[in-house]
Amino acid sequence: MKAEIIGIGTEILLGKIINTNSAYISGKLAEIGINCYCHTTVGDNPSRLYTSVIQALDRSDIVITTGGLGPTLDDITLEAIAKVTKKPLMLKKEIVRLICAHFKKRHIRMVKSNLRQGYIPKDAIWLRNDVGTAPGIMCKLGKKILIALPGPPREMQPMLERYILPYLKKSTTERSVILSRTLKTTGLTESQLHEKVKKFLRLSGDTTVGIYAHPSQVDLKITAKARSIKSAKRKIRFIEKGIHKKLGNLIFAADKETIEGKVVYLLKKRTIAIAESCTGGLISDRLTDVSGISNNLLLTVVAYSNKAKIKLLNIPEKKLKIHGAVSIQVAKDMAKNIRALADSDIGIATTGIAGPTGSTKKKPVGLVYIALSTSARTIVKKCYFTGNRKTIKFCSSQAALDILRYYLMNNEL
Amino acid sequence: MKAEIIGIGTEILLGKIINTNSAYISGKLAEIGINCYCHTTVGDNPSRLYTSVIQALDRSDIVITTGGLGPTLDDITLEAIAKVTKKPLMLKKEIVRLICAHFKKRHIRMVKSNLRQGYIPKDAIWLRNDVGTAPGIMCKLGKKILIALPGPPREMQPMLERYILPYLKKSTTERSVILSRTLKTTGLTESQLHEKVKKFLRLSGDTTVGIYAHPSQVDLKITAKARSIKSAKRKIRFIEKGIHKKLGNLIFAADKETIEGKVVYLLKKRTIAIAESCTGGLISDRLTDVSGISNNLLLTVVAYSNKAKIKLLNIPEKKLKIHGAVSIQVAKDMAKNIRALADSDIGIATTGIAGPTGSTKKKPVGLVYIALSTSARTIVKKCYFTGNRKTIKFCSSQAALDILRYYLMNNEL
Repeated sequence: MKAEIIGIGTEILLGKIINTNSAYISGKLAEIGINCYCHTTVGDNPSRLYTSVIQALDRSDIVITTGGLGPTLDDITLEAIAKVTKKPLMLKKEIVRLICAHFKKRHIRMVKSNLRQGYIPKDAIWLRNDVGTAPGIMCKLGKKILIALPGPPREMQPMLERYILPYLKKSTTERSVILSRTLKTTGLTESQLHEKVKKFLRLSGDTTVGIYAHPSQVDLKITAKARSIKSAKRKIRFIEKGIHKKLGNLIFAADKETIEGKVVYLLKKRTIAIAESCTGGLISDRLTDVSGISNNLLLTVVAYSNKAKIKLLNIPEKKLKIHGAVSIQVAKDMAKNIRALADSDIGIATTGIAGPTGSTKKKPVGLVYIALSTSARTIVKKCYFTGNRKTIKFCSSQAALDILRYYLMNNEL
Repeated sequence: MKAEIIGIGTEILLGKIINTNSAYISGKLAEIGINCYCHTTVGDNPSRLYTSVIQALDRSDIVITTGGLGPTLDDITLEAIAKVTKKPLMLKKEIVRLICAHFKKRHIRMVKSNLRQGYIPKDAIWLRNDVGTAPGIMCKLGKKILIALPGPPREMQPMLERYILPYLKKSTTERSVILSRTLKTTGLTESQLHEKVKKFLRLSGDTTVGIYAHPSQVDLKITAKARSIKSAKRKIRFIEKGIHKKLGNLIFAADKETIEGKVVYLLKKRTIAIAESCTGGLISDRLTDVSGISNNLLLTVVAYSNKAKIKLLNIPEKKLKIHGAVSIQVAKDMAKNIRALADSDIGIATTGIAGPTGSTKKKPVGLVYIALSTSARTIVKKCYFTGNRKTIKFCSSQAALDILRYYLMNNEL
């Protein structure tokens, strides 16, 4: 079975919106053994969309469109599909009911154009949207399947996973599956990681390992093709074991796990407090993305100004004058004192130059001190990061979370 | 002149990485009147890449590839381009020198594989990478131009803007330009905004207006095609004026401006302090993304626990018991007290249920109180948001920044 994905939206063609849906859907289809040979993008133009869908249905067994299901005039997918299936658009009462309920829940006034989303081609199966108002559509055309999903990923993804994938899994005669697992590392460059795991990267055939760099993070992706999920998982496990032997704790998480999720998991009953300067609240923001953190995170103080550092974090003014706010001494005091202030088990602190201004010859943009304090000891790590202000903030938060992770795993500094 | 973009990377085809480069490059090319008819994605496979480049050169005047220039074995773009141009790969000493300097600056050990990036096809023009180690490549093949750029956007984008666009602008005979301008709103749904600006959305021909929804933000994009930049700008300005008349302050920013940037601009000399609960540090993180905020932001306290609310923010324990932490009363006190604690002009506070747990019948997931306090008054807004934990946090931070923006624009609550 072959699939094709059509992204809809002039904004994509003009480069004003990034089409993340094609990649997402391809990945999910690969997992159930369906290959995706082609991605197309068309604008908000009914006749061009019609032609694209017709051509795609001619080439492939499954055609999935994303986008163009919104309530506004330039949303033209339903009209095009009605034309392809040669069925009229009909108002579905159940959909209208759901749309009204959606607005009521959000305490938002509904406008007339929202009703446009209640019209679907006759005989089409409609798919409930739990996040937004646009329903998805599925039509069978002989042996071919035409599916229309909403453009916003947070609406499209649950629909794909809840309705489309289980259905296609049953329909496909393809018995081989492709599974992959991503191992995430931080603290090494792409080349350093490459040197360490070189022999795995040369694998070929049904099992491969790829290396992918992001700011402050390099991933290894193991991909295995096999006749069954069980066998693909076995292949992946075998390679993963070998990589783990080489890298050990350098791997901080796998697949959808995050470093913040790992940290919260490892914290167990220990409490933490954070004093942020250059990261501006980002460490706290990332940790509070994890549900359950309220049991651990007692307090964060973003002491951006020296005044706040002196008043709230009890940093001696003299120390700030002699060493400067970006110094090993101040980082140390920040971590110690936030721990004391919050009466927590662990204190974490950051201070650095996020740029673009504020640097001196001795303290360049990207210089960041990260401190971790426990009742036993306080340590400080000096780091150099590159990139713009946002990247430096992110890399600093990543390094802070990683230092915390190491401490929590080894129980010593 | 026609352009084509080829994204390189098996990870894209398998859906493990999203190709943002094609959209970015298309947008930039459109601005100088070069249309992009086709985006292709190929895997890390030298012969398939070779074939794709040959085909693209056959169809289009400009072919731009992104990715596959890294230091590892699966980076195969330079080999493929050498084959296309029929030139051998040669080690360039200047590139090696830059690569060494890059590692020295970051205080990172360089490994042997990094030298791979010093090899480029003979006679190719190479483009300096100021952010990473992979140089870009430009080759002329008769009247056609073949360009290879690195995959990471933060490396690709400066190279495109510094070298490629000025070069192509000079080369193109195309005299029409496409410009666009995005007006950003928050606080209205897509449909509500649609109703307000309906008549502009029906524009057709050389000037169009599109409507694009994001979480907590709906954008209007005006696009104009004209014979000159001046004339395109005039067309856009005309439409923009009309939309502004309709929407006024609902528009919080345009193009690359952000709401946090706008707030920092409007703050001028006023100081601010933030007490965050459900947003967990996100408001502070967003504001500190803006350079210069250190003059305004005195202090942020993320009082996630009730203990911190009582101890640091002086919320009476009794109030927390009677009304709960998520209440109009506590939000009000948080904003007032953080202002007092930091001795700032403005205090901002959030408290709410980000979910997925912690809700009650009366206090559903997504209920958030946002408070703003000045020496004159303290106001609280009650909001309902939908989505997952991260989305609710984001929408809350967006609403808080918008309340702050309104106050700063109107100087009254």
